[in-house]
Amino acid sequence: MPRTGHRPASAAASTAAAEAGRAPAVRTGTGPVIGRALQILGAFSAQHARLSLSDLARRSGLPVSTVHRMLGELLAWGALERDPRGGYRIGLRLWEVGSLAPRGQGLRQSALPYLEDLCQSTRENVQLAVREDTEIVFLECLGGSNAVPTMTRVGGRLDSTATSAGLVLLAHAPAHVQDAALSVVPPAHTPFTLRDPLRLRRVLAQVRACGYAVSDRQLSLETLSVATPVLSPAGEVLAAVSLVVRHGSMSTGALADLVRSTSHAVSRALHTSTS
Amino acid sequence: MPRTGHRPASAAASTAAAEAGRAPAVRTGTGPVIGRALQILGAFSAQHARLSLSDLARRSGLPVSTVHRMLGELLAWGALERDPRGGYRIGLRLWEVGSLAPRGQGLRQSALPYLEDLCQSTRENVQLAVREDTEIVFLECLGGSNAVPTMTRVGGRLDSTATSAGLVLLAHAPAHVQDAALSVVPPAHTPFTLRDPLRLRRVLAQVRACGYAVSDRQLSLETLSVATPVLSPAGEVLAAVSLVVRHGSMSTGALADLVRSTSHAVSRALHTSTS
Repeated sequence: MPRTGHRPASAAASTAAAEAGRAPAVRTGTGPVIGRALQILGAFSAQHARLSLSDLARRSGLPVSTVHRMLGELLAWGALERDPRGGYRIGLRLWEVGSLAPRGQGLRQSALPYLEDLCQSTRENVQLAVREDTEIVFLECLGGSNAVPTMTRVGGRLDSTATSAGLVLLAHAPAHVQDAALSVVPPAHTPFTLRDPLRLRRVLAQVRACGYAVSDRQLSLETLSVATPVLSPAGEVLAAVSLVVRHGSMSTGALADLVRSTSHAVSRALHTSTS
Repeated sequence: MPRTGHRPASAAASTAAAEAGRAPAVRTGTGPVIGRALQILGAFSAQHARLSLSDLARRSGLPVSTVHRMLGELLAWGALERDPRGGYRIGLRLWEVGSLAPRGQGLRQSALPYLEDLCQSTRENVQLAVREDTEIVFLECLGGSNAVPTMTRVGGRLDSTATSAGLVLLAHAPAHVQDAALSVVPPAHTPFTLRDPLRLRRVLAQVRACGYAVSDRQLSLETLSVATPVLSPAGEVLAAVSLVVRHGSMSTGALADLVRSTSHAVSRALHTSTS
């Protein structure tokens, strides 16, 4: 999985590894206290949402005694909670504080009414994503119980080249981020996943030219998605809105028109809220 | 605002104060390092999502030099980010980790398709909430751009007696939590807000008997809401689903039927996912 960029490589590596369900790289236990507490929090992932004391020690790379000593404070504040089945889980209090992240919940909150309108009119999956280095993070994934199943979840990460939202965000990323993303061969999610760097560069140029990106069965054999950019009042690409439907059910042109009006409405709402 | 219960009072007080936009109670700066780092995170609130170094010191009750020393590690890990306008904000990385809280995002994720169906069929506000001590925390607030405006936001807190979701959750809470909630006179959001403890006890008994709760202009003069409980596979009340419409637009009976089928569907989904 490609990675580089503004965040320390260790954090990016640990997140990507955690998202993939692997234990993050073991780091030494001699770092400063806050760093070690954050390592404990970073040991959790979607696949490992409940961890025992020994799991926490193994996945954070810290001695059991150190983890045990730190758990008291993390539990008292509510960053972690005891699980009824034993073990530990991320606490509701940390979720509450995390929900204050302007680039996460803030952007999601401004966009939600428009995403909701699109979801209601199409009854399909509507997603909102931002870029973190060479990966994308989903801020919202809406979809009724009859919409085609997708691989995405809120707070989940994916490499940016297989999804339409990722292609939009990468197409407008700084050159060094594009270079980093294209320097590693992305995982082949399906036989249709684009993996050739030259071909991907042509696709990114096309996305910039036509204003939308398409992922046709590149992430899953069932899905077709189209994404368009959300712009900040200063004209920077902040996020991407995507519409994910069952492959073959709609034309990309029709999807692009629908998702474009939503991303325009979100951009306008951001403009109004900050002016 | 009433408060008591399982969480340390200081954490509850600090959250409630932060939610109300006040600086949390100043605590001494001599506590352990993790506690002080968490105090810095706890200084942020919905009304104070961007803070300067001196704001952080004031709101966390820590010396500027201490805050400054800790910011480096919090920024490096991504718990905080620099704001383009100067100052600090909660980072996307903390939002990602927070999204792993089973009682937050996990429950929300299981419920979302059914909340979405209800939102699509009614085009009204659909909310999901859990109880924390005597308050409730909103895990999801859906609503198209034409739905009646509400006072709720994801991650936001309210006292439990003014909302239909809160009344459902309080009606099924342990006796000591009910006592604590009713020992303090709740804020009068409108002239219709129920504030008399005896009357509230009768309402809670009614909620248990009829299976749903109603808030008729008790939180805002524009809104009527009806809520029903979501049950765990063991039969405990885990959360409440509520439907919020413009006052006078629908009967409570019709609302109760709609929201009940959604909360049943969510309960069944939780049963299936854990069996």
